[in-house]
Amino acid sequence: MHKLSLHPDRLFPAHDATRSIARKLYESVRDLPIISPHGHTDPSWFAKNENFTNATDLLLVPDHYLLRMLYSQGIPLESLGVPDASGATSADPREAWRLFAANYHLFRGTPSRIWLDWVFSEVFDLDVLLSGETADTYFDTITNALQREEFRPRALFDRFGIEVIATTENPLDTLESHATIRDCDWNGRVITAYRPDPVIDPEFEGFRFNLDALSKLTDEDCTSWKGYLAAHRQRRDFFREMGATSTDHGHPTPATADLSEAECEDLFRKVQSDTVDPADAELFRAQMLTEMATMSLDDGLVMQIHPGSFRNHNPALFDRFGRDKGADIPVQTEYVHALQPLLAKHGNDPRLSLIVFTLDETTYARELAPLAGHYPALKLGPAWWFHDSPEGMRRYRRMVTETAGFYNTVGFNDDTRAFLSIPARHDLARRIDCGFLAELVVEHRLEEWEAAELAQDLAYNFAKAAYKL
Amino acid sequence: MHKLSLHPDRLFPAHDATRSIARKLYESVRDLPIISPHGHTDPSWFAKNENFTNATDLLLVPDHYLLRMLYSQGIPLESLGVPDASGATSADPREAWRLFAANYHLFRGTPSRIWLDWVFSEVFDLDVLLSGETADTYFDTITNALQREEFRPRALFDRFGIEVIATTENPLDTLESHATIRDCDWNGRVITAYRPDPVIDPEFEGFRFNLDALSKLTDEDCTSWKGYLAAHRQRRDFFREMGATSTDHGHPTPATADLSEAECEDLFRKVQSDTVDPADAELFRAQMLTEMATMSLDDGLVMQIHPGSFRNHNPALFDRFGRDKGADIPVQTEYVHALQPLLAKHGNDPRLSLIVFTLDETTYARELAPLAGHYPALKLGPAWWFHDSPEGMRRYRRMVTETAGFYNTVGFNDDTRAFLSIPARHDLARRIDCGFLAELVVEHRLEEWEAAELAQDLAYNFAKAAYKL
Amino acid sequence: MHKLSLHPDRLFPAHDATRSIARKLYESVRDLPIISPHGHTDPSWFAKNENFTNATDLLLVPDHYLLRMLYSQGIPLESLGVPDASGATSADPREAWRLFAANYHLFRGTPSRIWLDWVFSEVFDLDVLLSGETADTYFDTITNALQREEFRPRALFDRFGIEVIATTENPLDTLESHATIRDCDWNGRVITAYRPDPVIDPEFEGFRFNLDALSKLTDEDCTSWKGYLAAHRQRRDFFREMGATSTDHGHPTPATADLSEAECEDLFRKVQSDTVDPADAELFRAQMLTEMATMSLDDGLVMQIHPGSFRNHNPALFDRFGRDKGADIPVQTEYVHALQPLLAKHGNDPRLSLIVFTLDETTYARELAPLAGHYPALKLGPAWWFHDSPEGMRRYRRMVTETAGFYNTVGFNDDTRAFLSIPARHDLARRIDCGFLAELVVEHRLEEWEAAELAQDLAYNFAKAAYKL
Repeated sequence: MHKLSLHPDRLFPAHDATRSIARKLYESVRDLPIISPHGHTDPSWFAKNENFTNATDLLLVPDHYLLRMLYSQGIPLESLGVPDASGATSADPREAWRLFAANYHLFRGTPSRIWLDWVFSEVFDLDVLLSGETADTYFDTITNALQREEFRPRALFDRFGIEVIATTENPLDTLESHATIRDCDWNGRVITAYRPDPVIDPEFEGFRFNLDALSKLTDEDCTSWKGYLAAHRQRRDFFREMGATSTDHGHPTPATADLSEAECEDLFRKVQSDTVDPADAELFRAQMLTEMATMSLDDGLVMQIHPGSFRNHNPALFDRFGRDKGADIPVQTEYVHALQPLLAKHGNDPRLSLIVFTLDETTYARELAPLAGHYPALKLGPAWWFHDSPEGMRRYRRMVTETAGFYNTVGFNDDTRAFLSIPARHDLARRIDCGFLAELVVEHRLEEWEAAELAQDLAYNFAKAAYKL
Repeated sequence: MHKLSLHPDRLFPAHDATRSIARKLYESVRDLPIISPHGHTDPSWFAKNENFTNATDLLLVPDHYLLRMLYSQGIPLESLGVPDASGATSADPREAWRLFAANYHLFRGTPSRIWLDWVFSEVFDLDVLLSGETADTYFDTITNALQREEFRPRALFDRFGIEVIATTENPLDTLESHATIRDCDWNGRVITAYRPDPVIDPEFEGFRFNLDALSKLTDEDCTSWKGYLAAHRQRRDFFREMGATSTDHGHPTPATADLSEAECEDLFRKVQSDTVDPADAELFRAQMLTEMATMSLDDGLVMQIHPGSFRNHNPALFDRFGRDKGADIPVQTEYVHALQPLLAKHGNDPRLSLIVFTLDETTYARELAPLAGHYPALKLGPAWWFHDSPEGMRRYRRMVTETAGFYNTVGFNDDTRAFLSIPARHDLARRIDCGFLAELVVEHRLEEWEAAELAQDLAYNFAKAAYKL
Repeated sequence: MHKLSLHPDRLFPAHDATRSIARKLYESVRDLPIISPHGHTDPSWFAKNENFTNATDLLLVPDHYLLRMLYSQGIPLESLGVPDASGATSADPREAWRLFAANYHLFRGTPSRIWLDWVFSEVFDLDVLLSGETADTYFDTITNALQREEFRPRALFDRFGIEVIATTENPLDTLESHATIRDCDWNGRVITAYRPDPVIDPEFEGFRFNLDALSKLTDEDCTSWKGYLAAHRQRRDFFREMGATSTDHGHPTPATADLSEAECEDLFRKVQSDTVDPADAELFRAQMLTEMATMSLDDGLVMQIHPGSFRNHNPALFDRFGRDKGADIPVQTEYVHALQPLLAKHGNDPRLSLIVFTLDETTYARELAPLAGHYPALKLGPAWWFHDSPEGMRRYRRMVTETAGFYNTVGFNDDTRAFLSIPARHDLARRIDCGFLAELVVEHRLEEWEAAELAQDLAYNFAKAAYKL
């Protein structure tokens, strides 16, 4: 059995003087409240405040980072407790946990290991490393703790020092959980974000059905271009009432367009037909990004674009288990031509706040930093998804900062549904950012007092400002 | 008020033994003369040797690195003293400077900060950091200094230890300033470089008008392929008389072609018509790179290709303020297929010296280092534009050296119109290169005496040899 | 004259505590046997066990890394002893060696320098650096040593601690050398690998001629789709008898396809015609990758894909000297769409072992690590060719590990025909990997005992397991 303990200097640069500065910077931001402006936690957790069930269902089954790695080594998803498309599970949670535990070495060198060790140590006070040998201790300790009052969602939210967290919902969502949270006596700030992909993307499963539902929900005729836009405006207003300060767009590419009204009407008709041409679908998504930007100028919602994932790359797995099981693979992404129509129209307006993310790191220094370092409307989201990791964040800072500066970035996003890992992720980001700042100080590229200011900005101020929180 | 002082160890690696070696290497190259084989200073400065006017007009208004960053944060270019397309300015220079100074924190972590702090400290002896508070002190100190004899262009040139500087002119330029400099009693070596884009690129503003002008200037019929080529030869000869040792080509892509005479004649006719097909324009530029290489084999001019920028990405800004205001954005660039026709024709000839640059760092290790590590005619220019920065240079050395070696690179180019920053840029490059060499020494990948030789090569010899200076 | 000595700490990270850990890890793997699962040594060396001839013919003429660099600086290949297409050489070996020696500085900062210095020092006990001055000493020392018994191929194989080495042969090869080695009294394990490009790639020189030869060799009708597949199965079986545990595929791209039987038959007819459409050739290669995977599921051969090289970029050089003279240039490579058909069909089967390599480092973090971190059948080959270098390996580990983990990688491949450099290459890889692990330990991202386990895995276990050796 091996000890588990989080070293206080973990993730800081090795060089001693640099590490000292990093440590000092980190001390000054470690306890700042968490701003979580983009993520995928379930608002019903906070609305109902029910106990989580057990270690497996909370920590393993919903975490696609874990599922993918275990699956890549030949471990069937069924045996990990993942329900199939019908919702049925065949594995006993304890058995699934044991399988995970026996394969915990697979996560060596990955951010999952860092996040999980933090959760095990800081949330559940475990002091031995997870392994086949310690699997049951872990399962029992965690599952028992979860039954207690202080491990309910709201208690954890408060304990984690979360100042505000945004969830993500689609326009057809009626946001009851958010209403419950708003109206209850708990002070936690849980807000929504407007993610309209299901009613914007003609290739989304059930697109036309979703348009019908949107029509019903809004009393607008969503088969007409005008009615459709009005429905968006109405839902955006409703989302804003439920706290939303942002929209989010998960398109395959960051393509944008700026068509005439007549072209839009024609295109909207086409994408509602029985078979949609892929080029029309792409153009419609492109046009809708520009429409969303136009609406943002009116209602003030910050706009996020998360492009570049080939979703559901593994059809057999998708058929059996559905989405989000680790089979989404990044593809090369082009931003300079893609964003030009939108930026030509609205990019010079500093009232617009357009935050762009990427899964293609080659665009950091080549495309995104130069764009963000020029257009008043454009800012860069943090290192995302596969790149939300120590090395990924370092590459981000090193490739972005010299051209975009710090001030065209927006702080950290945890972007997770793994609620318990949220403080671990912010802690990791704060450590890496302080390490990066310390390196600049030691190379005399920044004064220490400037690094201290920036540490606060990166850990707290930038996210709060960029997302209007 | 914060102190401004340039730390003697700035930009060296943090590790102590490495830093010691870097420092020693740097000491041996710090005072070498500056070879500036590619840049955009105005030769009339040195021809007329008039005093610069004030801090804002010298340091802020012409510097697109500064304009873009300030603009990205919503600061209007008008308020920074940038003249509109008609040449009119609306801002008071002191007010513009104050705005810049109050936002100087935006440049934290960027190379502009490093260059400017050097200029402020070394050229103007300022010892407090630029900020809103010190804006007037700065403006007055700099503006007053600029009225003095020893801050005139030639005095600064001599003080900076510039051995030779190349400017960049187009074939229609009559190079009077260069003639004045050549004929005067000042010994500074200011040479031109042949940049024929305006008469080569059918998509350049006024292409056909430029051809007419070229015909008049050369007495050749530049509407015929033969006359057009003869005109190039004539102007190249004239540029060589004015000191030119190189040509420079700022094409959108590095595409080259090797067409037959008949195809060339036909293509040249097409690109002179009222509407030019983009594919024809691209093919014509491609063919002309090969023609330029052929001429280089005759007249010995070194050939530079600077591709991969999407110029004037922001149409509204372009309409209002014109070119070079920070809205040029790099795009993905392909070299292996693009350069093949030219290299197949002339790449095996060691008398040709073709220096290629890139804004797409993904091509360093994948395409450019393998090409330069094979073809006798090909060499790699230094980290360029957005990548002319500490991290950019480090990436360049790390990605290029193992495959291209040091000896297929050409030393440093400052590539700037910001005259006062030239020594700062060379100093930065020397520091980073010495740091990189020191790292190789500490890892026992290079002996210290070899690093010392290479430090001289990178700082001085390579540029001088590659550009035949 | 400068000393040559290999520093015991070479290639370890500079930071002292990190270096100590790296050194300790390295001590534990330094003397592990060499597993060389993919390479290009000549099996006849081990079959005949004849003495190598001289320094030039052994170390210079066959090494395309050396030829390319020397050629890039204008040194004609003739003068280095490279035979032309007719097999004639014009240079005296000693003169060729002198030319190489006088230009040895060109290799500063390249892996060739590291490999060669190891060979000179460890194999030939030389203790001065190679230079013009020491050229003759080197030539004589090496050439004389090569005449001795203990420098014959089998003796060196044993001395190098090679447990197993794989060569690479095409299906038309009759593997006599392998039979000789198998049947002789020497215990060295030299196995083949099945590289069917000449009978799979319709654009390969002599494709149809090769199909005829394959028909004759197998008694199958290789003009019919069924016969052709049967011939492959037969030759794979023969190769397996000669020790093969893997196949290898050097396609221009990693494109795969999954066509119907009828489509395959039709396509196979087309690619046997007089002129082959490039798209048909590409589709055929793509389909054949999937066919090879299907066969691998039956016969257990591990499958390797090495795509992304633009072969013979320099036509004049190719005409004069043939293949493999340093004119193969990497191109951008796309994997996500390309591999999808094969992965959709077989990617979920953990019995398949598909090892993918790349020359395009941008795909490490973006495409390959996410794919390998998901599909049970997919693993990542090590940093390849131009990237088989200190910086290349570091980039590989830093970009791959966080998403693929260590356990979806396959250890090191030397992939070389430079037999004497094999231990140098493995030594380099072990040093760099131990340095990387040490960095994770010092940043408290890994415990030291875990790093020790992984050091063994990366140096020995992974290659053995992944290649079923």
